[in-house]
Amino acid sequence: MAGLFISFEGIDGVGKTTQADLLEQWLKASGKSVLRTLEPGGTEVGVEIRKILLHHRGELAPRSEAALFAADRAHHVATKIRPALERGEIVITDRYLDSSVAYQGAGRELSRQEVRDLSLWAVGGLLPELTILLDLPADVARSRRNTTGTEPDRLESEKIEFFERARQAYLELAKAEPERFLVVDASVDVNAMQEAIRARVSELI
Amino acid sequence: MAGLFISFEGIDGVGKTTQADLLEQWLKASGKSVLRTLEPGGTEVGVEIRKILLHHRGELAPRSEAALFAADRAHHVATKIRPALERGEIVITDRYLDSSVAYQGAGRELSRQEVRDLSLWAVGGLLPELTILLDLPADVARSRRNTTGTEPDRLESEKIEFFERARQAYLELAKAEPERFLVVDASVDVNAMQEAIRARVSELI
Repeated sequence: MAGLFISFEGIDGVGKTTQADLLEQWLKASGKSVLRTLEPGGTEVGVEIRKILLHHRGELAPRSEAALFAADRAHHVATKIRPALERGEIVITDRYLDSSVAYQGAGRELSRQEVRDLSLWAVGGLLPELTILLDLPADVARSRRNTTGTEPDRLESEKIEFFERARQAYLELAKAEPERFLVVDASVDVNAMQEAIRARVSELI
Repeated sequence: MAGLFISFEGIDGVGKTTQADLLEQWLKASGKSVLRTLEPGGTEVGVEIRKILLHHRGELAPRSEAALFAADRAHHVATKIRPALERGEIVITDRYLDSSVAYQGAGRELSRQEVRDLSLWAVGGLLPELTILLDLPADVARSRRNTTGTEPDRLESEKIEFFERARQAYLELAKAEPERFLVVDASVDVNAMQEAIRARVSELI
């Protein structure tokens, strides 16, 4: 496809939104068309799915949760991401397939392989050209999150151990696909992180 | 498992609810514990998923729709159907996996095999001991539905050809698994249909 597909990954609190904002601004300033989006909830249908995922009070069966993420992703790719790539745009998404693999596969009852297979089916095999993984120990990321003062949702309420397992799963995914992943140490200064990201993106455009 | 799992299938308007009601009454009158349920929407989470499926105004990407049905089914089986079967109850569900295969696989862009694989994964391989397929030409079924006077939802608004394709897909599924399926001619009298159903269920309890 004509465009460039970039995903940001990492556990909550590592600074994905800030880094994606800075990258988007830089690309737009140089005249690029950018579609900035997110998962779950990057479409109208996705917003409704996201509500079920994040705020449902009861417990979701693990396969049901995985299928809901896949449903959100399938609609997101078919109606937003793929059309933008076909128009030649740069797509920056906050979370994509690797989130499901790291969170559900590592943290819960399902294997990483089955979660990955499900998501790949949902998106017709579309993987990002570049996945930027912002890495931070789970306890540090949690302390950053808590400064916002907003009520934690269902996923945010999970124990710190869960997030550390997700972090380790992310690092293993990055190791398995070194060409797709850029791992950025999220404990360093915001501008230093952005510099590393821009250097890698520059090679791709 | 200790219980007995029965699903009712067929296009809208063939009389699934009436026949399931009569079967339920008969089983309960003979002292059996029966869980009567339906898809989509057999659980609290499922009701929210059903709302997205049936009433969302925009078009759903086919893989997203299939994943939403799978999410509903996964939660339904994990939290209601499997526990009831483990308690030794008879579970009667209005629609199950074959609905997805017939409607999505036959009528839309996806293959039957991929829809079946997705659903089987969602439910951990659980198939009914008996699937009762009520069969009627799509135009006859549609004329029955229209007598209710309620506003047609998104799926009901699909063209008659779609329902005839789903009907044919159902008949092919029944042919492929003759031990699991009982095909009942839904053009005959309500009581005659019920008699055929009870005869087959009697063999299983």
